[in-house]
Amino acid sequence: MTSDLSKSWIADRTKSFDSSGIRKVFDLAAKIKNPINLSIGQPDFDVPENIKRSCIDAIEAGKNGYAPTQGIPALRERLQNEVDNRFGHDDRQVIITSGTSGGLMLGLLSMINPGDEVILFDPYFVMYPALIQLCGGVPIFIDTYPDFRIDPNHVAKAITPKTKLILFNSPSNPTGVTASVDEVRGLAELANHHGVALISDEIYSGFLFDGELATPANYNPETIVIDGFSKSYGMTGWRLGYMHGPSALMQTILKLQQYSFVCAPTPVQWSALAALDTDMSGYVADYRSKRDRIVAGLQDDFELVVPGGAFYLFPKAPGGDASAFVNKALERDLLILPGSIFSRRNSHFRISFAASDETLDRGIEALKSLAQAAV
Amino acid sequence: MTSDLSKSWIADRTKSFDSSGIRKVFDLAAKIKNPINLSIGQPDFDVPENIKRSCIDAIEAGKNGYAPTQGIPALRERLQNEVDNRFGHDDRQVIITSGTSGGLMLGLLSMINPGDEVILFDPYFVMYPALIQLCGGVPIFIDTYPDFRIDPNHVAKAITPKTKLILFNSPSNPTGVTASVDEVRGLAELANHHGVALISDEIYSGFLFDGELATPANYNPETIVIDGFSKSYGMTGWRLGYMHGPSALMQTILKLQQYSFVCAPTPVQWSALAALDTDMSGYVADYRSKRDRIVAGLQDDFELVVPGGAFYLFPKAPGGDASAFVNKALERDLLILPGSIFSRRNSHFRISFAASDETLDRGIEALKSLAQAAV
Repeated sequence: MTSDLSKSWIADRTKSFDSSGIRKVFDLAAKIKNPINLSIGQPDFDVPENIKRSCIDAIEAGKNGYAPTQGIPALRERLQNEVDNRFGHDDRQVIITSGTSGGLMLGLLSMINPGDEVILFDPYFVMYPALIQLCGGVPIFIDTYPDFRIDPNHVAKAITPKTKLILFNSPSNPTGVTASVDEVRGLAELANHHGVALISDEIYSGFLFDGELATPANYNPETIVIDGFSKSYGMTGWRLGYMHGPSALMQTILKLQQYSFVCAPTPVQWSALAALDTDMSGYVADYRSKRDRIVAGLQDDFELVVPGGAFYLFPKAPGGDASAFVNKALERDLLILPGSIFSRRNSHFRISFAASDETLDRGIEALKSLAQAAV
Repeated sequence: MTSDLSKSWIADRTKSFDSSGIRKVFDLAAKIKNPINLSIGQPDFDVPENIKRSCIDAIEAGKNGYAPTQGIPALRERLQNEVDNRFGHDDRQVIITSGTSGGLMLGLLSMINPGDEVILFDPYFVMYPALIQLCGGVPIFIDTYPDFRIDPNHVAKAITPKTKLILFNSPSNPTGVTASVDEVRGLAELANHHGVALISDEIYSGFLFDGELATPANYNPETIVIDGFSKSYGMTGWRLGYMHGPSALMQTILKLQQYSFVCAPTPVQWSALAALDTDMSGYVADYRSKRDRIVAGLQDDFELVVPGGAFYLFPKAPGGDASAFVNKALERDLLILPGSIFSRRNSHFRISFAASDETLDRGIEALKSLAQAAV
């Protein structure tokens, strides 16, 4: 029996969004015995041994109590030095967060007043509109189909007196597209010109296949950068991220962190020092091969944009109805996610290539045969 | 140079509270070489070896990726069974959270609409008014001085049509006082009668010195209970809590958790299974002795209420000005916290007795001599 009384207690801010899209697919997936799972948003490799060892050492050494809200000094100072050397901004402060999601939530809570407009790019990471609405903000979507490129002129037209911030993500989830220096510079200068905040979510910065990361922080010293260890080191369940930006804002975020997340897990913070000394280029090369493998396998049968980073591909669904296509894929034990989870359109679908080559090959085969059947 | 632009971005919800009270004391404390530190809000023992081992095993076994939002099934089901056996409510659902603070924050975000009134008891845990105001709620304080007992008649008078919930904490931080069955039943029935929500923060349930925990969940099946592993097992830096209550509300909290905390740290969740099998009665007996030691040491010179749980004591400051007294203590290298952090009054101060007996004895000596000097 569900209590009706407790339903009457639920706050309005939670009613503007739901989270059922992904869960529905995962519930279906749980019923498949040996699925071809191309839906997972995390690396298929385990945490490297030396990083595990470092976390274990911290546990054994009794580093298990609260950490300072802003992070253990050794990690915070090391990241602060790296950030200072890279950007040379005089008011850029690093803080340690509980995952990038934790940093994102606190960043949005710290800036968005009810009615503020937040510009984001469609397709978008599933959390973005939900968190914006949780804070009472109004998501303003910039459509980036079909090439998922950012045109600063389109953004300029969307800016109003109510615009509080622009929320940007490269490499992108769900498209894997990486923004160019020109796109990023245009966006950075636009935000600067209008005095609006700019968040750059760089959680996939560790997975870049065709060159360096273009970050708006290079062109706008007030850019707020969110990054983390979860994806780069296969430690998504360890909940460790960091962010940096103007100190007044970082201090406000810390105030909220003190009363919510309290601190990122302490032994994990110690292990991050080992992570920063770990060469992940072999893993990245492996993921570049996976990217090449899936693109080569699908490009003749699907309309797609070659991803420059992350581990996602966002092709157009044959027939144009992603939900119908995802359901057909399910009948072949193939798990992919419909575009409607990441977009106001439902024409594309997301593939994660964070999977074994064998799984990728099974997926490619199933997808090709579905595409050919749809012709 | 601090960026003035970024200051203009900061949301109103963050301006209704600050977090400087505790930080000011800790900043002062950092300057003392060998302080008598009676300010710490965590046990002075390390995580027991078998629990560490279990966390390490999980890390080594590769249990490092995302956990389900609601927690790993093994832990969630075990706690659900315990809760079902204990209460027998037909709509009580357990979810795993990132610490009790994480559960508290999401619980309040899930229920409080701007303008809603939230009843809490003064003295209160420092986070409560801040989180209530972060959500746009209005804290309504029930003064419980001098004995820190709860009179349901006072609460009844504070209930208005705007009352959304009552936030209750026993054993209490900062007083250590545990509510009686009568107090708890009165509160539970009152909430039930008025159809308002009741959160019972039971994070110190592991530290009870004089009998069983009286929980309002025994008398009101819609009570929301927050609890965790941090304090009971010395793993405050591992960020693991849980909560249970009516399923519609728990589902809403999970929706928010999916978009913020994502999941509690995965290897820690596995270690919690070992924690539940660990006998902590020796640790509790040790803390009972510490309680007796500090009470015996101070009761002749201070007006105090003997705490029944947690590891705090909240005596009246000689002279009645807690800040002045805390500053005098600092001059003797003794760290205690002024009541103003936990109360609208500033007449008392918080002692944490989560410290070695040697530190406690040094603290008792310093406090006695300060009290005698104040006469």
